[in-house]
Amino acid sequence: MTRPGTSGKSGPTMHHVAAAAGVSQATVSLVLNDVGGARVSEETRRRVHQAAKELGYRTNAHAKVLREGVAEMIGFVGDHVATAPFAGKIIEGAQARAWEAGMLLLTVNTGGDRGLEAASLEAMLSHKVAGVVYASMYHRTVDVPDVLGELPAVVLNAQDRSGAFASIAPSEVLGGYTATRTLIRAGHRRVGFINIGAVEDGLPAVVGRLEGYRKALAEAGIAYDGGLHLAGDGDEAGGYRRTLELMAGDRPPTAIFCGNDRTAWGAYQALASKGLAVPDDVSVVGFDNQESLAPHLRPGLTTLELPFIDMGRRAVELILAGTPTPGHTELFECPLVERHSVAAPPHLPNQRTGTA
Amino acid sequence: MTRPGTSGKSGPTMHHVAAAAGVSQATVSLVLNDVGGARVSEETRRRVHQAAKELGYRTNAHAKVLREGVAEMIGFVGDHVATAPFAGKIIEGAQARAWEAGMLLLTVNTGGDRGLEAASLEAMLSHKVAGVVYASMYHRTVDVPDVLGELPAVVLNAQDRSGAFASIAPSEVLGGYTATRTLIRAGHRRVGFINIGAVEDGLPAVVGRLEGYRKALAEAGIAYDGGLHLAGDGDEAGGYRRTLELMAGDRPPTAIFCGNDRTAWGAYQALASKGLAVPDDVSVVGFDNQESLAPHLRPGLTTLELPFIDMGRRAVELILAGTPTPGHTELFECPLVERHSVAAPPHLPNQRTGTA
Repeated sequence: MTRPGTSGKSGPTMHHVAAAAGVSQATVSLVLNDVGGARVSEETRRRVHQAAKELGYRTNAHAKVLREGVAEMIGFVGDHVATAPFAGKIIEGAQARAWEAGMLLLTVNTGGDRGLEAASLEAMLSHKVAGVVYASMYHRTVDVPDVLGELPAVVLNAQDRSGAFASIAPSEVLGGYTATRTLIRAGHRRVGFINIGAVEDGLPAVVGRLEGYRKALAEAGIAYDGGLHLAGDGDEAGGYRRTLELMAGDRPPTAIFCGNDRTAWGAYQALASKGLAVPDDVSVVGFDNQESLAPHLRPGLTTLELPFIDMGRRAVELILAGTPTPGHTELFECPLVERHSVAAPPHLPNQRTGTA
Repeated sequence: MTRPGTSGKSGPTMHHVAAAAGVSQATVSLVLNDVGGARVSEETRRRVHQAAKELGYRTNAHAKVLREGVAEMIGFVGDHVATAPFAGKIIEGAQARAWEAGMLLLTVNTGGDRGLEAASLEAMLSHKVAGVVYASMYHRTVDVPDVLGELPAVVLNAQDRSGAFASIAPSEVLGGYTATRTLIRAGHRRVGFINIGAVEDGLPAVVGRLEGYRKALAEAGIAYDGGLHLAGDGDEAGGYRRTLELMAGDRPPTAIFCGNDRTAWGAYQALASKGLAVPDDVSVVGFDNQESLAPHLRPGLTTLELPFIDMGRRAVELILAGTPTPGHTELFECPLVERHSVAAPPHLPNQRTGTA
């Protein structure tokens, strides 16, 4: 019987892929045979792989795997990654990069169960995976199982407490700085910050984004006002409640940096309940660029993107490249995604405004 | 070195689990040793497993696996399941059920790439998985790879075109019927329906929910009005646009059944833009019960739950039970989750209203 993807009909050629991706055949060859190195941009790579995928084009690696019916495997152990509402993109990136090399990504979602995690890692070792990506749903410090010392392993979207493993995580400080600076550049001087948790909890995202917020304020000569920094819960309810608190003050902020998009969603709903418009009355910046949320808020939310796909791809690259350097940490920049939730501040009583 | 979950310290006992779950030790034993059968409700099972997980209690199956370092595996092949914003729960359910039996769920997210799918299935066969769950992100008719005929396989959240495999899917007709009847029982006679796609596309969710909608109308003696049934796009934008169209008619509906929660979210935003309140001016019912969306809309959205966790669990049960019956299809009821988006209709000009 014919197996899917291995039917006899002659498939699309590199020429078709080049045409669909709008690049030269040489570029397609460089990308699909993975020898492009720095000469080909990540964006171009993605376009080429997307076109190849849509056309069903098979690389040599794919052909070999499909012909011989065997593929090397990379293990991916996540806590809640596969079931989180958005972090699944980290799997998408890792999966895509592995398959580009003709390797399979075997994912286990442990739900945080240490016994299941241990059993999964044992199974992956006994089935001779080339390496393991150890991923967290949200950026935190994790205790990596010792067994991962036995093969190439990368800690993803997390920091390894022991420092014995390479890790990949978003740059929270830069993100918080960029978000806050975006509001300051629009002319805001009173910028509220609804964090996604309490600083005492020590989450890298909470601590780092606050550090970035303070850095941007300091750079603009704006004194940090503790009354403008509140701890939310990382969800819509916290954003709603904290926004009402911020706006109830005698000198309310003209802009709010929300620690994530769900918090920003709550801010939108709270502001609407007060008859305040985004961004004419209050500007809002979020964090995450959740595709199921940020573009659908009205107005569209200006936010920072958590580069899950790139981080997932990079984790697999480190494993493909051999033993990742212990303690080596790569922090990924979270790019600003500008939509329509930021404008110059209105001129309110008791309200100093800067210039855009 | 000590491996996580296998440390020497004596862990919690069945007594602790029983206390935490508020059930007898006998029940805990029945559930954890998986001999309870129909005598123990699914809800009780979940409470017990939750308590066991939180306490880190190890069943015999777990102990054996962790002691011997080997576990049987079940393959889970999904198209976009791991990266969809909500269908990940289907993995959570399958994973939990497999681990309860001391088995691992190895997931591959193919992104719809048939070559990757074929290679993944080959790898799973060569690594001797006990069976394979073949899952779809959204309910549709799929062509199952022939190779799955070589081992126990279940088609999940999809219908197998060939009829050669057992499949598990939500009951779309019953769901559409329940959603519509809920609005009719509140007193509505003009009930709009924004579907999540065009009927011509033949998606089971689109066709089935419409059938249920018409069934509920007929049962209440309400003539089907084609002008009240519009095809959305399954996302917020379509819900927004179609709601504005429905409300612009000379006899607008007093209630709208939205084919999914994202469509309902668009309806909320469109109604708000017209100064209309949910549910005082217009009642809304959604579909999916997306936990990241439905409870956070203001007011909370009354909707139907897609029983992803139960469906995922059941798929693994069928595999654990041996060869699933070919062509055997199990349709899962989508329970109504009542929040605050449904009320009796207002008395509008040109508006006949029934009685609650």
